Amino acid sequence: MPHRPHVLIMQSPLGALSPLLESAYNVHRLWEHPPVEAQNLIQAAVVLGEAPLDTAVIERLPNLKLLACFTSGYDGIDLDWCAARGLPVTHAPAVNHEDVADHAVGLILASVRRIVDGDRTLKSGRWTADERLMTPSMKGKRVGIVGLGLIGEAVAKRVAVMGCSVAWWGPRTKESPWPRAASLKDLARDCDVLVVACRADETNRGLISAEVIEALGPSGLLVNVARGSLVDEEALIAALKTGRLGQAALDVFETEPTDAARWAVVPNVVLTPHTAGATSEAVQGMLILLMRNLAAAVAGEPLITPVVR
Amino acid sequence: MPHRPHVLIMQSPLGALSPLLESAYNVHRLWEHPPVEAQNLIQAAVVLGEAPLDTAVIERLPNLKLLACFTSGYDGIDLDWCAARGLPVTHAPAVNHEDVADHAVGLILASVRRIVDGDRTLKSGRWTADERLMTPSMKGKRVGIVGLGLIGEAVAKRVAVMGCSVAWWGPRTKESPWPRAASLKDLARDCDVLVVACRADETNRGLISAEVIEALGPSGLLVNVARGSLVDEEALIAALKTGRLGQAALDVFETEPTDAARWAVVPNVVLTPHTAGATSEAVQGMLILLMRNLAAAVAGEPLITPVVR
Repeated sequence: MPHRPHVLIMQSPLGALSPLLESAYNVHRLWEHPPVEAQNLIQAAVVLGEAPLDTAVIERLPNLKLLACFTSGYDGIDLDWCAARGLPVTHAPAVNHEDVADHAVGLILASVRRIVDGDRTLKSGRWTADERLMTPSMKGKRVGIVGLGLIGEAVAKRVAVMGCSVAWWGPRTKESPWPRAASLKDLARDCDVLVVACRADETNRGLISAEVIEALGPSGLLVNVARGSLVDEEALIAALKTGRLGQAALDVFETEPTDAARWAVVPNVVLTPHTAGATSEAVQGMLILLMRNLAAAVAGEPLITPVVR
Repeated sequence: MPHRPHVLIMQSPLGALSPLLESAYNVHRLWEHPPVEAQNLIQAAVVLGEAPLDTAVIERLPNLKLLACFTSGYDGIDLDWCAARGLPVTHAPAVNHEDVADHAVGLILASVRRIVDGDRTLKSGRWTADERLMTPSMKGKRVGIVGLGLIGEAVAKRVAVMGCSVAWWGPRTKESPWPRAASLKDLARDCDVLVVACRADETNRGLISAEVIEALGPSGLLVNVARGSLVDEEALIAALKTGRLGQAALDVFETEPTDAARWAVVPNVVLTPHTAGATSEAVQGMLILLMRNLAAAVAGEPLITPVVR
């Protein structure tokens, strides 16, 4: 088939995109072999935005017109480095923020209402007639949201219906129906549930520090559906082990997949394997944006969803 | 202390009420010994509304003025029998419907977004880099609610914020923003998630029959936060085992505590030990209503929250 443009998939978790991409492109898979013969032909590289970019590979592709992140996040990409090389970057924004918010609410309820614990208790035959598990009510809980973007706002709307009060913090002020705390530490101190929902980059690594975790305190719940890098995971584990933090519910981790042994002796955690945004419907939306951005780049037309710095 | 009225607690799970009741009453506990010497003194009996009432004991209390259900539900009480004896019944309505609805939403998210599964997968070390668990989105899911009372309405509001559509069925029409299905079977057939939230009595035992379960089907999720008696549990287990029903999330069971062995080989279930309404805040509200109803009965004043037939 003549004139089928060449694209390179950079990481193996994206291998499942091959059949769709092959409907329109010659597809190379970096983990199978480096694209030596095709390096002058490759016009676009498809990447997982959250994984570190192998820049050495990119530099050997002289005709690259696009770095296409399959995901919404692009924290693995050095945008300065790309800009210096005139390499545009696209991503899949506003596709799965409601799914991520639903998952965050699911993690809150699984923790506060002890659903994961309850399931384990019952299935292991430890439910007895004379002991009734009591849990706190969601009503009146104070939910603090770190980063009031699309995800944060969607979380706020969901918990507000349950009678929770909402406050938030982010580095920049913005219009919103909910009050902004004076600082992240103030937000953590004055809430029961702290939901991390902000974008991650090198400037906010470890944002949820030992100090923030201690401010949240022994009855507090930390929920992270953003990125593992935002939380000081060592400090978090230490605080859970000593009861200085009440509970944590995490969908993202410093290293993914996280080592199960790392969590084996940590109490009061609900952990999911980075599934908050990975719904069938969201992936469908991400596929459509990926294909449209690739087509635009190859045709020299304006990109559909470029990363705006 | 003279003139402290006598009350009898009927069931051991209510034993924890003793200290509070003893602040104002002489308290007898049926499971410790039958109140033979005090039987002419006892003015009120405190019961768990969902458990069968020991009428033989009640008949031996000639000066009983009140049967006080600690709970909202009173399906264990034969109201005709009480009415024939002129015995008023009180309960604790509208105290925990929002907690029950929150728990229902937690069960839906735990099931649809695979939070309980994900936690188990991760903690057992089965999260691998190349396999990503994909789940369906809540958005666009059709939620069918059986019984649009306080709990059902609270569930509807919560899932509507997540972009779900809502329909309901109940034996009687009523004003509501959501459409009523022509029949329970129609509701089950036309929804993805069926939430059982109605009152239980002898007339609707086994309401969620094999036929309703099959109508819900292989991709359907059944959620029960009402009473175990409403669901044909044998039919439910058979349908889950053969894949004729997709998933079930249950907080209530035919027999409680349910036998863990009964569920050991049943796939796709999230099970909690009847905790939906048992929040600290709700119990606080139930305690207050109990004390006010007892005080009213003893003083011969109008009851605060009598059961209205």
